[in-house]
Amino acid sequence: MADTAYDPNNIFGKILRGEIPAHKVYEDEHTLAFMDVMPQGEGHTLVIPKAPSRGLLDAQPETLAALMRSVQTVARAVKAAFDADGLTIFQFNEPAGGQTVFHLHMHIIPRREGVPLKRHEGGMADPEILAGHAARIRAALN
Amino acid sequence: MADTAYDPNNIFGKILRGEIPAHKVYEDEHTLAFMDVMPQGEGHTLVIPKAPSRGLLDAQPETLAALMRSVQTVARAVKAAFDADGLTIFQFNEPAGGQTVFHLHMHIIPRREGVPLKRHEGGMADPEILAGHAARIRAALN
Repeated sequence: MADTAYDPNNIFGKILRGEIPAHKVYEDEHTLAFMDVMPQGEGHTLVIPKAPSRGLLDAQPETLAALMRSVQTVARAVKAAFDADGLTIFQFNEPAGGQTVFHLHMHIIPRREGVPLKRHEGGMADPEILAGHAARIRAALN
Repeated sequence: MADTAYDPNNIFGKILRGEIPAHKVYEDEHTLAFMDVMPQGEGHTLVIPKAPSRGLLDAQPETLAALMRSVQTVARAVKAAFDADGLTIFQFNEPAGGQTVFHLHMHIIPRREGVPLKRHEGGMADPEILAGHAARIRAALN
């Protein structure tokens, strides 16, 4: 159903295999959550399934169910950790849809009144800041 | 878990109860899909659960699972009906997160290379055009 096949050599596949690091906030049998390195807002977190799916269309229903359970769990913690007024959830499919990494992922962005989103291409965040944000979300999960 | 309780007097609640019309494209036991009357792109479709949830945070896990099954089903049809290059999925929580109707809903927007999204407040679409778009999506579902 995907436009093209899943390529395991994407950066989220590498994170899942431990080949590159990430600022992890949550992990269970089916999903992993970590900080977006090009955040559109403070606390911008990604949740991905461990099952290989390029996007929404080629995911198994049970993959989507497990993904959304984790999105809800992590979203509650993100909202608490950043005392957010709201949450914006994005999921992009194919380049025309905004996708840049071709492993299914959900964006969770805590929002505050009057603070617009930054562009996704706005640059890499300071790793120490991201590490601190991840620690805040992990604390809110516990 | 929601910021405030679910108010059944929202417009999607009224659509679910048949009190106001909608350009419906899909319905099953747990979900309903219909055209967004203020589309951010041609074919902009909404999928909602029938269970009362204000947003992501107060939904039952089984509600989210059923919602995502329908989002995937409808997204495939929307992509085919509009020969889209990609799909953008939005889910907004609370006004700061972009939410304007306080019944959980997922936006499915078919995307084409080089065509930016319109603003959501860009105005009401022509009902006859929306009826035609709904018919195209229903045909793609069959």
